[in-house]
Amino acid sequence: MRIVVLAGGIGGARFLLGVRAYAREVGAEVTAVVNVGDDLYLHGLKVCPDLDSVMYTLGGGADPERGWGRAGETWTVKSELAAYGAEPSWFGLGDRDLATHLVRTTMLSGGYPLSAVTEALATRWQPGVRLLPATDDRLETHVVVSDPGGGDQRAIHFQEWWVRHRAEIPTHRFVFVGAESAKPAPGVLDAVGAADVVLLAPSNPVVSIAPILAVPGLREAVADGSARVVGISPIIGGAAVRGMADRCLAVLGVECSAAGVGGLYGGRAAGGLLDGWLVAPEDEETVVPDVTVRAVPLRMTDEAATAAMVRAALELT
Amino acid sequence: MRIVVLAGGIGGARFLLGVRAYAREVGAEVTAVVNVGDDLYLHGLKVCPDLDSVMYTLGGGADPERGWGRAGETWTVKSELAAYGAEPSWFGLGDRDLATHLVRTTMLSGGYPLSAVTEALATRWQPGVRLLPATDDRLETHVVVSDPGGGDQRAIHFQEWWVRHRAEIPTHRFVFVGAESAKPAPGVLDAVGAADVVLLAPSNPVVSIAPILAVPGLREAVADGSARVVGISPIIGGAAVRGMADRCLAVLGVECSAAGVGGLYGGRAAGGLLDGWLVAPEDEETVVPDVTVRAVPLRMTDEAATAAMVRAALELT
Repeated sequence: MRIVVLAGGIGGARFLLGVRAYAREVGAEVTAVVNVGDDLYLHGLKVCPDLDSVMYTLGGGADPERGWGRAGETWTVKSELAAYGAEPSWFGLGDRDLATHLVRTTMLSGGYPLSAVTEALATRWQPGVRLLPATDDRLETHVVVSDPGGGDQRAIHFQEWWVRHRAEIPTHRFVFVGAESAKPAPGVLDAVGAADVVLLAPSNPVVSIAPILAVPGLREAVADGSARVVGISPIIGGAAVRGMADRCLAVLGVECSAAGVGGLYGGRAAGGLLDGWLVAPEDEETVVPDVTVRAVPLRMTDEAATAAMVRAALELT
Repeated sequence: MRIVVLAGGIGGARFLLGVRAYAREVGAEVTAVVNVGDDLYLHGLKVCPDLDSVMYTLGGGADPERGWGRAGETWTVKSELAAYGAEPSWFGLGDRDLATHLVRTTMLSGGYPLSAVTEALATRWQPGVRLLPATDDRLETHVVVSDPGGGDQRAIHFQEWWVRHRAEIPTHRFVFVGAESAKPAPGVLDAVGAADVVLLAPSNPVVSIAPILAVPGLREAVADGSARVVGISPIIGGAAVRGMADRCLAVLGVECSAAGVGGLYGGRAAGGLLDGWLVAPEDEETVVPDVTVRAVPLRMTDEAATAAMVRAALELT
């Protein structure tokens, strides 16, 4: 069996732990197609938060409490950068994490595409699944905002909105800069085409999954492919399990509920993506037109619980 | 009084501590023109070992025991880079030090010349003297070597020769790559032109001072200028005070002695640089044609001892 997972950062990483556990049990191959919309250059280094969250988590190097970055992290470089007054100061690059960005940036400067760099970095981490960026091209999520007191609209990088402003400024819309001319990374369309099932991880639908689907050809490959498509709701009982999906959904005017996100993805028959939609027991009344909805526990408390979610998702297909 | 010092790394940095102390006493202005031949890119970062040694030492941030790099340094990034198998692994970038290179590289990539970057970095360190790179252009010291068993000659970066091979492979000559087309950094020629005295720090004459003088126009400005020129011998009693000046001098076929180095710089009357040459008491018999030689203690054991050297040098003019 071949499984493709579209995934964002921390939620996607934890979900992939369960997918890998399930896949090992049944002998399946897993390809993770990971969001790059959060990527940015910081102090001249290319930082790929979602790819790194997945790589560190699957490689056993992630900080389990903080949820992002490396276990046992130290912050010497960050405090030195602050001593120089170097901006931006609102994004914390840990010392361990920084080495990843140095290696990545050096390879990118040498002409290797991000997908090749990701593969090279993964030789250290041995994530046990194939990691692919959604695209090798620049595709950055920007956010059109106003200042709290009003004034002109301006676009800021997603990370500035999320990390610096905690999504707490007037927000008008999201823009996936570069999406029109981006191409799926090598292997992405082949993986989707060969998949038996495509899973939409319980990641933020607006800023983790949508930028993946914004790569021309990728949404079509999923929607029109032979693989069954099952999504896992990132919303339980009307609240985001983690992160700020509620704020992102509000910007789109979509209800923060399992039904709201299911409707955003949409049923395949109506030009959407989903064959199945997995929701939490609290949301068992959820209806998404033309989509098979099933309710199972969706808390990713440990790998076994997450693998059980994956099994339930596959039973939906 | 205006003093210009041509200086390399650690020896130059310690000498400048004494120059600064002396200058504060007499109310002199100091400009240090610093070697850039050791500079290199490591993991995509522009590293300027000599400028940093001077900046950290004068700014109170240098490691006093190791002689290079930052006090209280940690090595997290280095060990992470090793875990990725990233090369080169023979050059140790400390975590604290690395922040300097990140800020510098970001500014250089933004189009600022090295002299402007150096000035910006110095706003943190407040070295108390004006720091100028010899040139803003690429000028790298390469070393033409053979493998120990023989074979073709090849050129390697000075740092690879020095740090990786400890200068212990067959060495044929030094090449200052880019020197022909380099221009003195803004302020260098003006400083030399306005100086009352130019001091040649007791740095390595072959790989610290020579690359500075290799910048077209710089040697001429010193040799033909109105400032008196006094050198301080880096060799005491036939041995280099620190570093591997002996190995470098051997490559040039110059005797490792105060007389050998004095002769290498040469007296002004014979087209060389020196008016005066300060040697250690052990070397009081030193003769350099047409140069006033004086013997005083040259061990830079502390700032006061070094300031006394500077006073003696100025008394020679």
